[in-house]
Amino acid sequence: MRMYDLIAKKKKGAELTTEEIRYMIAGFSDGSIPDYQMSAMTMAICFRGMSKRETVDLTLAMRDSGDVIDLSRIAGTKVDKHSTGGVGDKTSLALTPIVAAVGAPVAKMSGRGLGHTGGTIDKLECFPGFTTELSEETFVKNVNEIGIAIAGQTASLAPADKKLYALRDVTATVDQMSLIASSIMSKKLASGSDAIVLDVKTGNGAFMKEFSDSVALAEEMVSIGTLAGKKTVAVITDMDQPLGYAVGNSLEVLEAIDTLEGHGPKDFTEVVFALGAQMLILAGKAQDEADARAQMERVIADGSAKKKLAEFVAAQGGDASYVFDKTLLPVAAQTCEVTSDGTGYVHRILAEDIGIACMTLGGGRETKESGIDLSVGIILKKKNGDFVKEGETLAVICGNDAAKMEAARQKIKNAYEIHEERRTPEPVVRKYIFSE
Amino acid sequence: MRMYDLIAKKKKGAELTTEEIRYMIAGFSDGSIPDYQMSAMTMAICFRGMSKRETVDLTLAMRDSGDVIDLSRIAGTKVDKHSTGGVGDKTSLALTPIVAAVGAPVAKMSGRGLGHTGGTIDKLECFPGFTTELSEETFVKNVNEIGIAIAGQTASLAPADKKLYALRDVTATVDQMSLIASSIMSKKLASGSDAIVLDVKTGNGAFMKEFSDSVALAEEMVSIGTLAGKKTVAVITDMDQPLGYAVGNSLEVLEAIDTLEGHGPKDFTEVVFALGAQMLILAGKAQDEADARAQMERVIADGSAKKKLAEFVAAQGGDASYVFDKTLLPVAAQTCEVTSDGTGYVHRILAEDIGIACMTLGGGRETKESGIDLSVGIILKKKNGDFVKEGETLAVICGNDAAKMEAARQKIKNAYEIHEERRTPEPVVRKYIFSE
Repeated sequence: MRMYDLIAKKKKGAELTTEEIRYMIAGFSDGSIPDYQMSAMTMAICFRGMSKRETVDLTLAMRDSGDVIDLSRIAGTKVDKHSTGGVGDKTSLALTPIVAAVGAPVAKMSGRGLGHTGGTIDKLECFPGFTTELSEETFVKNVNEIGIAIAGQTASLAPADKKLYALRDVTATVDQMSLIASSIMSKKLASGSDAIVLDVKTGNGAFMKEFSDSVALAEEMVSIGTLAGKKTVAVITDMDQPLGYAVGNSLEVLEAIDTLEGHGPKDFTEVVFALGAQMLILAGKAQDEADARAQMERVIADGSAKKKLAEFVAAQGGDASYVFDKTLLPVAAQTCEVTSDGTGYVHRILAEDIGIACMTLGGGRETKESGIDLSVGIILKKKNGDFVKEGETLAVICGNDAAKMEAARQKIKNAYEIHEERRTPEPVVRKYIFSE
Repeated sequence: MRMYDLIAKKKKGAELTTEEIRYMIAGFSDGSIPDYQMSAMTMAICFRGMSKRETVDLTLAMRDSGDVIDLSRIAGTKVDKHSTGGVGDKTSLALTPIVAAVGAPVAKMSGRGLGHTGGTIDKLECFPGFTTELSEETFVKNVNEIGIAIAGQTASLAPADKKLYALRDVTATVDQMSLIASSIMSKKLASGSDAIVLDVKTGNGAFMKEFSDSVALAEEMVSIGTLAGKKTVAVITDMDQPLGYAVGNSLEVLEAIDTLEGHGPKDFTEVVFALGAQMLILAGKAQDEADARAQMERVIADGSAKKKLAEFVAAQGGDASYVFDKTLLPVAAQTCEVTSDGTGYVHRILAEDIGIACMTLGGGRETKESGIDLSVGIILKKKNGDFVKEGETLAVICGNDAAKMEAARQKIKNAYEIHEERRTPEPVVRKYIFSE
């Protein structure tokens, strides 16, 4: 078998066999197939696409390029959750303690943030001492004993995907549906859970800006998961504005704790409940949506969800006192306000620009090597559909550098679109995709 | 400017600017743009194509990546000739002495053969001592004094094309019209002639098997040449069977000398006259086709064309006595016949397979490093449209190794298609493409 022939075959629009896809990924992984052949192939895939069967084969070949984690020592049905990434997306911070408090084991791999979207691990590091470098032993023990553990993604998980993504990233071949879906799913399938709930964001701040593209990506991923033998559900949620009011690491932790106390933002709480309900149903801990919601409301009302967060933070070396005294969380030295130049209704908020403003303040990474300032961020005061008067505050910036804050202020002001007519905001949960 | 953005732009189907194409070729040449980005680009070009303007820009950028030869010290209009490559294509051997004998200076760069098509330089090396390694001084002097010089293509001529072709060759992106045209024309434009005559082969033994593709390629190249300021004409000639009767280095030299003596094969002589007429017209040495043909017939009849070949061979260190005593040319030790299994008319001869049979005998290179046996080859006894009886000889094999000859015999037998009905062979000169 020669890679040349596989490129020529895909270029003509033919379907690659399972064996051919396995050969390609194995050769690309061990370096016998050079980058320049693989990039010609991915470009051909951008034009010719891949069938469902090819996409599943690619996903499984990438899954098998590294370790496939065995979570059989953890009792119960392990449900993983993945978000395609958004601004203000602190969902895992509130969702995992709630689900664990209800009784579903959470054994999760998370990543750090890059670009305009934040990462769960960065946010959790607001608790001094917190670490995601757990031995397999500790990971399994923590899930079995307290019901939750979050580990950093290791390099040994789907390394072929890591190598392929890096190549796609520099050859303008990232935006192909089957390649995106197989990239996400290869890692999810390698991380050993029994079922997967996908949070597919849609809107101006999401990777998929068009609703129809988000649906297509969700369907593709649900189909891959199902064909690979995992119960998989996708929830398409709105990212036409940041989620909740807080954007920035410690500000988001604070908002997540508020939510565990029952007074979080309405849109954010709704996303947490929608995803949590699906996780609980897949884990066999709830009969249906109503049952799941009732149980989640109970663990919030009786404080056990918040207590679960503290247990989890402590078990991974973090200072759990911060969960009960939010004033301990890192706070920026200065604040300034972003005021409205006009009067009207908030039509939309360019979420990506809010994310970039946060990065400008020092709260996000421009490159993988950048350090981040956990204390900085943005608190939105107005969201889609809200009425605002000229001079009224749109958002508050928390920062440590006046020049950076001024740059962020301009960016945030421009991110707000104010119209005379009010547009009814989209519901935060847009659609559910279940396996056929 | 970033190569990433150029790939994304072409992928979307947009036209690259002159500046962008220059940036791309400069970066690819100096290594700052890696192969994996360039191969993604060429694959995107395969799907999106290039405009005429982009193709000219690409050609000129590749031309300018190395030396552009200055032939201004040679008097008169220098006309170059290029063939897209075929089997039995010894055209340059007869054509250049004829044209030079009429009075048009020939200053030519040639290549060696690779795969199933032979190269002019290999054939010329049948004359012991012949070399194409000429100093610029000698090259110019020879053209001025005897009217003809042929040099090997140096690495400094359009090196970006050389690098790009090597990459396309391993990424299944060779067969794109604009890329093919710019590759050929970048070298032709760099080699310093004032006008160019292109011999574009069409048929089963040609690079372009479909007539319409050959026309498209010819039109593209004529358009590039014209836009680059060179008078350019293309002649589309038949390659649905080998050209002439002889295939193999010394056999082809012999046939070329026969042609210079006025008794060459009809199809081959016609190709030589068609191309020669265009060269003489472009060089300003003939009024029109009829005038050119009359002059060419004269230099054959009076022996001056053959004498010109001898002068040229001697000027480049070769033993010119071979021109006058063809029995001196290398001869293979053995011959065997390929006979027909059926009775009927030759419908077509798979020229590529005849070329491969010659390579099998040792007469062609499988890789750039292979040595070749100048004495071996095939003499066709039947050509398209000829009647053949069962057991009659189709071709004679000249070889030095019985096993290789047997392998060649099978290949040649299978290359002949015999039908009951006679199909009138295509004319050898199919079409002329002049600049608009």
